[in-house]
Amino acid sequence: MRNIKFTIEYDGTNYQGWQRQRNTRRTLQEIIEKRLARILQEKVRLTASARTDAGVHAKGQVANFKTETKIPLKKLKQALNSLLPGDIVITEVSRVNLKFHARFDAESKIYRYTILNKKHPSALWRNFAYFVPYKLDFKLMQKTARLLVGRHNFGCFQARDKKPRSSVRIIKRIKIYKVRDFTPHLSAFPKGLVAQKDAGFIFIDIQADGFLYKMVRNIVGTLIEIGRKRFSPSRIQQLLALGNRQLAGPTVPGYGLCLLQVKY
Amino acid sequence: MRNIKFTIEYDGTNYQGWQRQRNTRRTLQEIIEKRLARILQEKVRLTASARTDAGVHAKGQVANFKTETKIPLKKLKQALNSLLPGDIVITEVSRVNLKFHARFDAESKIYRYTILNKKHPSALWRNFAYFVPYKLDFKLMQKTARLLVGRHNFGCFQARDKKPRSSVRIIKRIKIYKVRDFTPHLSAFPKGLVAQKDAGFIFIDIQADGFLYKMVRNIVGTLIEIGRKRFSPSRIQQLLALGNRQLAGPTVPGYGLCLLQVKY
Repeated sequence: MRNIKFTIEYDGTNYQGWQRQRNTRRTLQEIIEKRLARILQEKVRLTASARTDAGVHAKGQVANFKTETKIPLKKLKQALNSLLPGDIVITEVSRVNLKFHARFDAESKIYRYTILNKKHPSALWRNFAYFVPYKLDFKLMQKTARLLVGRHNFGCFQARDKKPRSSVRIIKRIKIYKVRDFTPHLSAFPKGLVAQKDAGFIFIDIQADGFLYKMVRNIVGTLIEIGRKRFSPSRIQQLLALGNRQLAGPTVPGYGLCLLQVKY
Repeated sequence: MRNIKFTIEYDGTNYQGWQRQRNTRRTLQEIIEKRLARILQEKVRLTASARTDAGVHAKGQVANFKTETKIPLKKLKQALNSLLPGDIVITEVSRVNLKFHARFDAESKIYRYTILNKKHPSALWRNFAYFVPYKLDFKLMQKTARLLVGRHNFGCFQARDKKPRSSVRIIKRIKIYKVRDFTPHLSAFPKGLVAQKDAGFIFIDIQADGFLYKMVRNIVGTLIEIGRKRFSPSRIQQLLALGNRQLAGPTVPGYGLCLLQVKY
């Protein structure tokens, strides 16, 4: 028995998210598992670090599976990539300890949310950045975001339909920065990017030990309301203290989100 | 009569290029003209700075048209963008002198070609960067590219099917640079990008007074052969002196190309 770990990059535009579903075949999990089964001639179940939603992208999703195969890893990667559609690429394959679990063993994950803050939307980035035409107080957003760092009950940023036992998580790092015309898929927390006037893109990178369902998208929706001056920054403390979802901003769309990296 | 100038951004992935064709409706010109006619209630003909090929993108295509309409420009832009699909966006609209012609009056155009030079292809950039898995001698490519700058007969880089009277053009500037993980749609000739080890993207920006049919894609194909050491750098001088298309490298795919800017 071998335990194999994949790092996966995908453009989520054409998928109904990671997790297998009864009513659609367009999930990343189903598509990868089926191709893998064809190569290995055995049924496989992938365990992913995160069940990304419809439209959400990944630069470094991690998944593992157990198999009896003896196919060399390099060959397996080549064979699988040649069967997968172009919007899914296995970027790394390695053998890991049998105990390794892509979700439970993740120490932290880094997500990036990309906002396009310009007068007009972008044809080139329409599937990768959320278009916000309103004036945003960028510095206020940066300052306010810091209040989220640390160990908190983030229940206020959690979608109602999925409830884990605890909604306490640790946000280790948040960085908000802007650049004029850039990629939403940089390596995490890049250095040397200087804020520019009339910057088009605003990136929000969040690293946490774990994320509640739709947590990043609800945090970003709230930060945008603060940037628009429709919420005052004290709303964050209020939200964290009262845990009331109704006080938070709207959930921003999935296509602005990208799972950049999972740390073990 | 008014002469109106558009700046247009588009994701060319789903189109058969700019120019109207008999056998397809999926051309940028036809789609924009039809929506425009619906708004203006008159037939319009767009003149573009360049007839980009199938799959080619634009950040700053420029086109003009003559009209009797009195609709305010801001309203026209809004109305047109609301009718256009998300992969075409009119970013600027202005009124210009009646004599202005988007193609004949262009002083220069800047194209960018994007190469992804990594071990594995990218799911996120598959429609915007040409994947080259071979080792490329980047410095040699940079050095050799300089030989192309200036006034030359570029007939050797011209596709055979379209022959203008003269194949002499002036390349004003070529810049080749690499970054680790970046966008193919930056502003032209960005500053402060440092070459990094194991860089993923190689950008080739070319500014010229005009381009022959498929000229950028043939130049890039030749530079890649030089980077792979399958051609020696002297091939460039040979090509420019002899004008023999057979000596050039292959034509790289259209989806790596983006029309960044047109200068008037």
